[in-house]
Amino acid sequence: MSHVNFPLTSLDEIASMVKDLPIADHESKASARARQDCLTKPAGSLGRLEDLAVFFAGWQTQEVPQIKHAQAVVFAGNHGICAQNVNPFPQEVTAQMVANFKAGGAAINQLCQVNGADLSVVDLDLDKPTADFTLAPAMTAAECLAALNAGAAAVSPNASVLILGEMGIGNSTVGAALATAAFGGEAADWVGRGTGSDDAGVQRKVDAINRAIARHRATIGDGCAVLAALGGREQAAICGAVLAARLSRIPVILDGFICTASVAPLYMLDPASLDHCLVGHLSAEPGHKRLLDAMDKTAILDFDMRLGEGSGAALALGIVRSALACHAGMATFAQAGVAEG
Amino acid sequence: MSHVNFPLTSLDEIASMVKDLPIADHESKASARARQDCLTKPAGSLGRLEDLAVFFAGWQTQEVPQIKHAQAVVFAGNHGICAQNVNPFPQEVTAQMVANFKAGGAAINQLCQVNGADLSVVDLDLDKPTADFTLAPAMTAAECLAALNAGAAAVSPNASVLILGEMGIGNSTVGAALATAAFGGEAADWVGRGTGSDDAGVQRKVDAINRAIARHRATIGDGCAVLAALGGREQAAICGAVLAARLSRIPVILDGFICTASVAPLYMLDPASLDHCLVGHLSAEPGHKRLLDAMDKTAILDFDMRLGEGSGAALALGIVRSALACHAGMATFAQAGVAEG
Repeated sequence: MSHVNFPLTSLDEIASMVKDLPIADHESKASARARQDCLTKPAGSLGRLEDLAVFFAGWQTQEVPQIKHAQAVVFAGNHGICAQNVNPFPQEVTAQMVANFKAGGAAINQLCQVNGADLSVVDLDLDKPTADFTLAPAMTAAECLAALNAGAAAVSPNASVLILGEMGIGNSTVGAALATAAFGGEAADWVGRGTGSDDAGVQRKVDAINRAIARHRATIGDGCAVLAALGGREQAAICGAVLAARLSRIPVILDGFICTASVAPLYMLDPASLDHCLVGHLSAEPGHKRLLDAMDKTAILDFDMRLGEGSGAALALGIVRSALACHAGMATFAQAGVAEG
Repeated sequence: MSHVNFPLTSLDEIASMVKDLPIADHESKASARARQDCLTKPAGSLGRLEDLAVFFAGWQTQEVPQIKHAQAVVFAGNHGICAQNVNPFPQEVTAQMVANFKAGGAAINQLCQVNGADLSVVDLDLDKPTADFTLAPAMTAAECLAALNAGAAAVSPNASVLILGEMGIGNSTVGAALATAAFGGEAADWVGRGTGSDDAGVQRKVDAINRAIARHRATIGDGCAVLAALGGREQAAICGAVLAARLSRIPVILDGFICTASVAPLYMLDPASLDHCLVGHLSAEPGHKRLLDAMDKTAILDFDMRLGEGSGAALALGIVRSALACHAGMATFAQAGVAEG
């Protein structure tokens, strides 16, 4: 257990926190793997479902992990980078979609209901967009810290699993900027059409990121500084939620490209800080595959989705429920009187 | 609606039936697609979930399809080809696993419970294996017809969706034989390790199929004759269930390699006879990808599973439920007061 806890009083504390995080319990994982090999099926025949059960066993520190309470949180923020005309939707859509989440009308509402997650929505100063990061750091250290703490505070310590999502007009550019800062390469490698950009819109995103990377070059290599310079409030909140979940050994399911890019600053601080994070789906946004390769993650689902708001993560929760139900409920060969061959 | 109905009195009737099947309703599909484009998300951003909703709309003949009753059926049979030592498990395991299904201890039981399907198990003369198809046709025409009718009789005409699975020691060899007969190529292209064969076991499977194809060469090109010569009772029952579902416009979710291979004889009769069939998952059995390519199908999930018994199909049902929940429950842009950009 980390000696540094939320709420943090300084961004510098994050670097200490990530060096002192709880790790998966190897004994529980070994017990879960042994259990899988006794269940009435050919060894290994449930494929990734078996791996998911073992993963949850390690983080929940029990041979038979359970989902008693699945928590889903969507963080929303607004972004100064919209001044660079990087998005075809007006910025008011962020608040409109937050209202839609709260009224139950969005995809994430339906997906949480079907897959059994309790959804909460945390909107972060929507009337106060971050600064345009082509001109200045997106957030001050104090703003970034407040968003990190807000993200951490949203996590229920009793959650069995945490589903994370985001909403913020302009934040596919923010995600691509974070990915470029974290993993290098050309900005164009990380930029896609987001929610409907044409070729000129994509080029504006690339140009904005190139200018931002040049301006904030001094931050590259320092995850916290990159997060403040190029991130948004919902990105910082996702980092805070991921760390808070880790302190309580809660497995996390990240959503698509933007959600994964949001935690790239944590990966920069220590790749192992994301060991408790699954990725729900491979986004149609082309940078996501590159990002997952860079972070050594494999998405659970691949349905050509590109909606965000936690939709792919909530969908993957259903797969996790199936995996854990097989693990917990199947008879062993001995119990069922089935020959092992 | 077909003029030929179950129970069939002759195998020859199948050829007439497949030429006179109901087709998807294009108006319902168009309405569903139009609805998707009004929902509060960027157009197309739910990817394959949108396609699944439109698919169900077409078969259920309504803009907003529903799953009121998800039926899952596992068919079980025994196979004379086991005399050729093609499987490391003893043939008694088929009946033992049927007992396990009935007692609720198998993977398919847990997956049906989590994903909301009513499971029934139909065991087909387990004490009377088919003939060894290296020596004779696996089934007489009468045996094949009885199994087809049993499969059709198992389908509830009120089901909203039908999940199909199989159990039968030795039936990965049966599936590979059907695939070889239907799509050609080398037997080795279609043979995998099944539930744990070693290299010598794989070679015995290939040898058995080569001898069977040589013996039954006269049947190649006639789907019904191939089914009787090389199939098993559970394969014929799956064909019957698929056709009965089609007559009632019930969408079907097939499971993995063996389940897909089971309907290859229907594909030989008319590829369009499988238009109402989805494939739940891509099996780790290497022939499955080749089979799906040959039948122009794309699996919903890919989790490296190779269990059979309907497990991948039941898992995919959860995805379908999510797709239909988004389609039915999301607000439109107008309802939510969200700008369309």
